[in-house]
Amino acid sequence: MNNTQYTKYLFDKVRDISYANPGVIRDTYGKGENLTHMFLIKELKKFNTKISIDFGGNFLATYEGKNKKKIIIGSHLDSQKHAGNYDGLAGVIMGIIVIKYFYEKKLIPKYSIAVMGIRGEESCWFPYSYIGSKIALGRFNKKLLHSLKRSDTKKSLYYHINKSGFDSKKVSKNKVNFDISNFKCFIEPHIEQGPVLEKKKIPLGIVTGIRGSFRYRDAYCEGEYLHSGATPFEYRKDAVVAVSMLVNEMNIIWQKQLKKNKDLVITFGQFFTDQNQHSFAKSSGLVNFCIDVRSNSNKTLKIINETLFKKIKLIEKKTKTKFFLGPQTNSQPALMNKKLIKIFQKYSKEQAIKFETMASGAGHDASIFANNKIPSIMLFIRNKNGSHNPKEYMSINQFMKVFRVLCGTIENNYF
Amino acid sequence: MNNTQYTKYLFDKVRDISYANPGVIRDTYGKGENLTHMFLIKELKKFNTKISIDFGGNFLATYEGKNKKKIIIGSHLDSQKHAGNYDGLAGVIMGIIVIKYFYEKKLIPKYSIAVMGIRGEESCWFPYSYIGSKIALGRFNKKLLHSLKRSDTKKSLYYHINKSGFDSKKVSKNKVNFDISNFKCFIEPHIEQGPVLEKKKIPLGIVTGIRGSFRYRDAYCEGEYLHSGATPFEYRKDAVVAVSMLVNEMNIIWQKQLKKNKDLVITFGQFFTDQNQHSFAKSSGLVNFCIDVRSNSNKTLKIINETLFKKIKLIEKKTKTKFFLGPQTNSQPALMNKKLIKIFQKYSKEQAIKFETMASGAGHDASIFANNKIPSIMLFIRNKNGSHNPKEYMSINQFMKVFRVLCGTIENNYF
Repeated sequence: MNNTQYTKYLFDKVRDISYANPGVIRDTYGKGENLTHMFLIKELKKFNTKISIDFGGNFLATYEGKNKKKIIIGSHLDSQKHAGNYDGLAGVIMGIIVIKYFYEKKLIPKYSIAVMGIRGEESCWFPYSYIGSKIALGRFNKKLLHSLKRSDTKKSLYYHINKSGFDSKKVSKNKVNFDISNFKCFIEPHIEQGPVLEKKKIPLGIVTGIRGSFRYRDAYCEGEYLHSGATPFEYRKDAVVAVSMLVNEMNIIWQKQLKKNKDLVITFGQFFTDQNQHSFAKSSGLVNFCIDVRSNSNKTLKIINETLFKKIKLIEKKTKTKFFLGPQTNSQPALMNKKLIKIFQKYSKEQAIKFETMASGAGHDASIFANNKIPSIMLFIRNKNGSHNPKEYMSINQFMKVFRVLCGTIENNYF
Repeated sequence: MNNTQYTKYLFDKVRDISYANPGVIRDTYGKGENLTHMFLIKELKKFNTKISIDFGGNFLATYEGKNKKKIIIGSHLDSQKHAGNYDGLAGVIMGIIVIKYFYEKKLIPKYSIAVMGIRGEESCWFPYSYIGSKIALGRFNKKLLHSLKRSDTKKSLYYHINKSGFDSKKVSKNKVNFDISNFKCFIEPHIEQGPVLEKKKIPLGIVTGIRGSFRYRDAYCEGEYLHSGATPFEYRKDAVVAVSMLVNEMNIIWQKQLKKNKDLVITFGQFFTDQNQHSFAKSSGLVNFCIDVRSNSNKTLKIINETLFKKIKLIEKKTKTKFFLGPQTNSQPALMNKKLIKIFQKYSKEQAIKFETMASGAGHDASIFANNKIPSIMLFIRNKNGSHNPKEYMSINQFMKVFRVLCGTIENNYF
C-alpha cells in the first residue's frame, strides 16, 4: 500500500474498532481506547520500531536515527462519546506514516523519530484533561487517581488504569518509563476543531499557542418556584432570569475583550431547569449550568474570573437569587516553541504551501509538553464540521498535505 | 362539629383521599379528582341539598331559598401534580360551610345557594384550561375532546370523561345540565397564589379582574453545537446565548410596561439544553423553553406578542440561530362584576375587616363565568408559600375570616 492508501486503511480500521452509532467511542481506559492502542502498536511493529509502554498505558514507538535525541510525533487516541474519527487519531497516524516513509525508503534520519499514542486527553470520561501526557511526564497528581471517577462507570481512574493492564501504583509514585531527557521536541498534528482553515481554504495551521481555561462544570443558581401569574415582578426570585442575565453579561464582556484584541472564548454549554419541577406556570427555582472560559493569557483568565464573581454578586442582588459555582477546574495556557514555528513557516513558504499562523482555541496534550520545557508545536489539518461530533470530516487529501510538510522538514534536516 | 371543626375535617379527609408524597394529587378525570367529588357530594347530602351532576361530571348542590335564582359558590377540585391541598378545594368547602350554616340555623335565604364542584381547571393534565367550567356552560370546543391527551396516560379527554362515568357524546353536543338561566352570580373563594395578602397581613382579597394569557409551551431555538474553545465569536450559533438574550429583553420590556402602569407578568418557566448532547465543551445547538405572558388587558397581550416576534427576529440575526415558538394557547382576561365588588367592599368596611382590592394574576374558572355574562367575583384567602407546591399553606383561621364575610353578605341580604 502507498502512504495514502495505508493512511486510509488505518483510519478505517480504527473506525471499525471503535464504531458506535453514530460516530465512534474510544473511551479513556476502556474498550475503545484499549483496542485502538493495541491495533496501532501492532502496525508500528511492521516498521522496525522499538515499542515502549509506560505505567499509564501510553506507548512510544521509536525509529532510530543517527542521534538518540527524538522528534516525538503524537497525539491522544481517546475520543468523546459519539465523536468523529479524526480528533487525536490523525496525529498518531501521521507519525506512523512518517516512520513508514523513512522505513520504506531505508533512510536513517538525523534524529530518531518516535510516535507517541497518548491516553485520556478528553475530559468527558474523567472530569480532568491530559491524563495521559501528565502521566508520561511524571506530572500526574496522585490524589486524583482515586478521586476521579469515570462518568459512566463511576469507578476510579486508579481502578481503570489497572483494569486496562497498567500500573496505578507506579503512576501514583510519578514513575516515568520513557527517556524524556532525550525528547528533542514534541510535534502534535491535529485536525482544526474550529472553522478557520475550512472557511479560508488553507491546508495547514501553524499553532503559536494553546489556550488555557477555567471552568465551573457544576454551577447552579437557586431561586424560588413561584406562580407565574400571581407573583408580581418585585416578589420574583427567578433562576432563569438570573442565569440569562449572567450569560448576557459575559457575552458582552467577551465582545469588549475582543475589541481590546484579547484572546478569549466564553461558553455556557449547559443551562437547564429541573425536569421534575419546572413548569410553564411557575418561575424557576433552580437552573444548573456550566461555564467554560479560555484564553492564551493567564492575565485575561484572571480578569474574567474576577468579573464573573462581580457580575454574579450584582445579579444575585437584582434577582434575589443565589449562585453556587462549585469546584473550578482549569488548565494553563501554553506557548508553542518559536524556533519550531519558524521551521514550519519557512519550509511551507519554500514549498509554496499556504498556511495560517494561529492560536489553538482548544486545549491539547502539546500544552503539557510545552509547559514541561519540551519544545512543542501543533500542526492543524483542515477539517469540516468541527469536532466532538460524528459529522467531523477530514479528507485524506488534506491530511497528506500536512504530512508532506512534516516529513519534508525532517527529511531535509530543518531540525 | 362546629363550622371550624367541620372545615378542618373536610380538608383533612380530602387530603387523605388524594394523598401523594409530597403533597396531594387530584388528577383531572382521574382517581384523585373522582374520589374528591364523590366524597364532597356525600357530605353535601347531609344538608338537605339537591344534587345535580352534568355530562362532564361537574356537580351542583342546591340549598333552596325563597327565590329560585341561585348564588353559586364554587371552584375546581383537581390539583397539579404534588400540589398543596387548598388550591381550588377551599372554594368548594367554603360553599359547603355556608350551606351548613343556613341548614343548621334553619334559615331560608333570600336566594337559593348552590355549591359547584368543577372539573379540570389545572392545565397540567390536559394542556388546556377551564375544561369543567366550559363544559358546565356549554362552551366547550368539541374538537378538543379528541385532540387533548392527558400528559401521563396519553389518552384523550373524550376517553377520560367516559371512563369517569360521564358522557363525552353529550359534552360534544354542548348539552348543558344545569339551569344556568337561574344563576344569579358566581362567587369563587380561592387561596391567593401570590404573596401579597401574606406580606401585608390582610385576610381578604377582593378581586377586580382575572388576567388572560398567551403561552408558547413548546418553543425551541436551534443553534449549532460547536467546539467551545476552537470556535471564535463570529462563527458561533449559540442557542443558550440566543434564548438568554430573549429572556433578558422580555424582562426589560416587562419592567417598562410596569412603569406605564400596565398589568403584566412574563415567565420563562422552562429553559433547557439537551441532556444527551450538551456539554461544557460545546456551544449549544438546542434550547427548549416556554413563555407564559399574562395581563388583564387584551391590548397589552397583543403588544407583547408582537414585541416578542420582533425581538426574536433581531436575536436570530444577531446570533445566527432559529426560533420555533410552536402552537400558542391562550385565555381571555375577565373583569369581575362591579356590583359584587362593591358589596364585599361595603360589608368588609362595616365589619372593620381589612381587605385588598386586587387583580388576580392567576387564571380561574370565574373568568369563564364572567365572560359568559354571569356576574362573577373572586374572594382571595390569605395563604403562605404560593400554590402548586406541597408547601402551600392556608390556615383554617384565615379561611373562617373570609367565610364570615361571605356568609354575612348573604345572610344580611346584600344581594
